[in-house]
Amino acid sequence: MSNRIITISRQPGSGGNIIARIAAKKLSIPCYDEELINRIAEESGFHSGFVDKHSEDISGGWFSFAASGSFYGSALQDSLFKVQTKVIRDLAGKGPCVIVGRCADFILRDHENVLTVFIHASLEFRATRIRELNGDKVPDPEQFVRNKDKMRKIYYQLFTDRKWGAVDNYTVTLDSGTISFEKCADIIQSLY
Amino acid sequence: MSNRIITISRQPGSGGNIIARIAAKKLSIPCYDEELINRIAEESGFHSGFVDKHSEDISGGWFSFAASGSFYGSALQDSLFKVQTKVIRDLAGKGPCVIVGRCADFILRDHENVLTVFIHASLEFRATRIRELNGDKVPDPEQFVRNKDKMRKIYYQLFTDRKWGAVDNYTVTLDSGTISFEKCADIIQSLY
Repeated sequence: MSNRIITISRQPGSGGNIIARIAAKKLSIPCYDEELINRIAEESGFHSGFVDKHSEDISGGWFSFAASGSFYGSALQDSLFKVQTKVIRDLAGKGPCVIVGRCADFILRDHENVLTVFIHASLEFRATRIRELNGDKVPDPEQFVRNKDKMRKIYYQLFTDRKWGAVDNYTVTLDSGTISFEKCADIIQSLY
Repeated sequence: MSNRIITISRQPGSGGNIIARIAAKKLSIPCYDEELINRIAEESGFHSGFVDKHSEDISGGWFSFAASGSFYGSALQDSLFKVQTKVIRDLAGKGPCVIVGRCADFILRDHENVLTVFIHASLEFRATRIRELNGDKVPDPEQFVRNKDKMRKIYYQLFTDRKWGAVDNYTVTLDSGTISFEKCADIIQSLY
């Protein structure tokens, strides 16, 4: 039996990263989120800021190419995805853990013991959270969330050939705007 | 505060109707599934067999029109949907309950106290269940499930203008091929 892994994909602003941390704490297993960025940076030689920006979203400059359908992944983002795949598979091989985002649900699709989770919430709920967390730094939170959704969706589709957030990809999906973060983590724990 | 309602939408063969019954029993509230068909039949004057066939799937004869995009609901199915809407709203007004399928998640979208659930499972899991339940009566269970999916999807889209099984429509979605029926019902109970 391979290590039991939890992957948590999440809509921007849904609080999925917080839910991941709470669930990992309840289960006493590591949670890889920012730590994952550092490991990918270390392994790839890219700066962690670059990894953070390009490891799950199509970023601004590439977006117009992607949207036009003429873009199949820049060389840089392609090689980043390869490193990301290796790092995530290595972590899954080492021991039970929670992995946040970065197409881990797809990368570990052949791993026999994965609980795949998707956290979502209404646009209104997510924009309100972004406003609370960032204040004036994000002048239009709704537009920010919409753009982030779009960039993540296209990134996921480009690299996995699947639809981001499609119900069939997940063992469980939870609306964190209706269910408290604590309760979401309880459900994840109970399914582990 | 309005009555707390649970709507359970489900892919054909996923066992959603069984999960609904278990959850309702755990919560000691009524579960409307076949009973719903009888009530719609009584209210509409249609035979219960007709209601069963046409209250959540586009049936064979109409399918080619629907697929061509030139069909916006036959007069019969339209009036059936109106009765269905009335019956479901009446039930939700009477007391807490579980309602299975029949676009109840959409019909009760403005009801302030609804837990919306979607039960899904892999094609393989569902085809195996259909085979076990029906034996030779269904010669090609995979094809049967695929057709049913298609008919339900088109029905839902025609009458709700939403995408059937889209994650945003549901508080929680559960993969009943991975999570046991009993456990699915436990999660629903814990969210009530």
